Amino acid sequence: MARLSVAFQGERGSFSEEAAYKLLGRRIGVLPCETFSATFRRVVEGKATACLVPIENTLAGSVYENFDLLLENHLHIVGEANLRIVHNLLAPPGTSSREVRQVYSHPVALAQCSRYFSRNPQVEKIPFYDTAGAVKMLVERRLRGAAAIASRIAAEVYGARILATHLEDHHENYTRFLLLSKTARVSPKANKVSIVFSTRNVPGSLYKCLSVFALRDIDLTKMESRPLRGRPWEYFFYLDFLGNVKEERCRNALSHLGEVTNFLRVLGCYEGAKR
Amino acid sequence: MARLSVAFQGERGSFSEEAAYKLLGRRIGVLPCETFSATFRRVVEGKATACLVPIENTLAGSVYENFDLLLENHLHIVGEANLRIVHNLLAPPGTSSREVRQVYSHPVALAQCSRYFSRNPQVEKIPFYDTAGAVKMLVERRLRGAAAIASRIAAEVYGARILATHLEDHHENYTRFLLLSKTARVSPKANKVSIVFSTRNVPGSLYKCLSVFALRDIDLTKMESRPLRGRPWEYFFYLDFLGNVKEERCRNALSHLGEVTNFLRVLGCYEGAKR
Repeated sequence: MARLSVAFQGERGSFSEEAAYKLLGRRIGVLPCETFSATFRRVVEGKATACLVPIENTLAGSVYENFDLLLENHLHIVGEANLRIVHNLLAPPGTSSREVRQVYSHPVALAQCSRYFSRNPQVEKIPFYDTAGAVKMLVERRLRGAAAIASRIAAEVYGARILATHLEDHHENYTRFLLLSKTARVSPKANKVSIVFSTRNVPGSLYKCLSVFALRDIDLTKMESRPLRGRPWEYFFYLDFLGNVKEERCRNALSHLGEVTNFLRVLGCYEGAKR
Repeated sequence: MARLSVAFQGERGSFSEEAAYKLLGRRIGVLPCETFSATFRRVVEGKATACLVPIENTLAGSVYENFDLLLENHLHIVGEANLRIVHNLLAPPGTSSREVRQVYSHPVALAQCSRYFSRNPQVEKIPFYDTAGAVKMLVERRLRGAAAIASRIAAEVYGARILATHLEDHHENYTRFLLLSKTARVSPKANKVSIVFSTRNVPGSLYKCLSVFALRDIDLTKMESRPLRGRPWEYFFYLDFLGNVKEERCRNALSHLGEVTNFLRVLGCYEGAKR
């Protein structure tokens, strides 16, 4: 059987790579991409079997660009992973915690570790384009007195040492990732559905859309809206609900939703990650 | 009467300044601020009478940071403006359209004028931190062969010439701004209400929240969600609806909403901008 190749955004050793191993095990091939748009394109063009992209973080919110890309590219959601974001302090071998004077990382990671910086005023924060990319750069240039904040996978990939772990201020920091593939396949374990729709521009239309779920006791887990380009002040709504498209009540809810919307697409039916 | 001083994010001549003049006339004082957070702070600290911040754009979507800042700072929404975003090509006096070889602007503005760049392949795009800031820099340094994409107000403020107008690809490009002040005042013309709430974490809770409006024929115009920090997979919902808090059906809807939510705050009741 051909090895599964999984595209993700960022350098090797990113949190997306960590999430891919969590969801699919360590025997996959990984394909780092520069942008989210390029990550989707790898799968569309058949250069990767699947891609894994972050869709929301419990502190920072949704990754809105990926909601737009889900609609533009016709990929199917086939899996989900929730990764607890643990920020580690990594340095090239030979650097000790006490020697650290500069810490490189992505601005979001630096901001999420503010307590470490206030406890260590001798350390300077240096913004970098990528968490794992910072580890790569430090190891390549053998920078002295410098460390990076990144995932533990980055330590493995670049041969860096973990000087400290759990640098993050909030422990309730999770990122939810979606696994996307060119072909839809609904596993028998699938218990979650993601859809996108646009409402008719009449009063009470969103309420009617939600009623197709509420009247059938179907639980919603997430709702997001994005602008409908070219139609000012109209929106696409993205909705996740618990169920399987093969269940009768879900089939009925979707067909009922079709009656009260202008546009409706099922983005995928998949096994939801544990919360 | 003291002159109204209005804080906004960005350099003098920004689209926010243009929106402020549209909403309040030209006799106001303006206070440019570096970040959105600093813009809110000026009003909280009493250094500006009000601030005007963008909340959504019909192509790019919501300005999520400002939703979070609305909740963190206890300011009141007292007005709204919709500004059509017209991108102009501005240059220091003495530069003609044919001489332009570099165009500076904010990356979003450059991306929204892609047709101009494909029709003018001799012109290089140069990303800059701010649209109006690019005009300021060009005029100060008297750069030859260089222009900027910015609002028409920037031409006035910095004494630049407008070489071309309507460079934007999509004409349906509007930004909605909110006027915020420290004290709530509800004008008799107020016809729109903005609120934020969090639901109880039980099935059907969002549906119940929307039903308090639908059952009273109250129109919703916008809904947004943001993560509730420290409570993974729970959300704040921001809702705009048409009505006035002094109307009985709106008062009843809000009191009904209070029964089915954990948290509810009225962000403001104001005169909605024309669409």
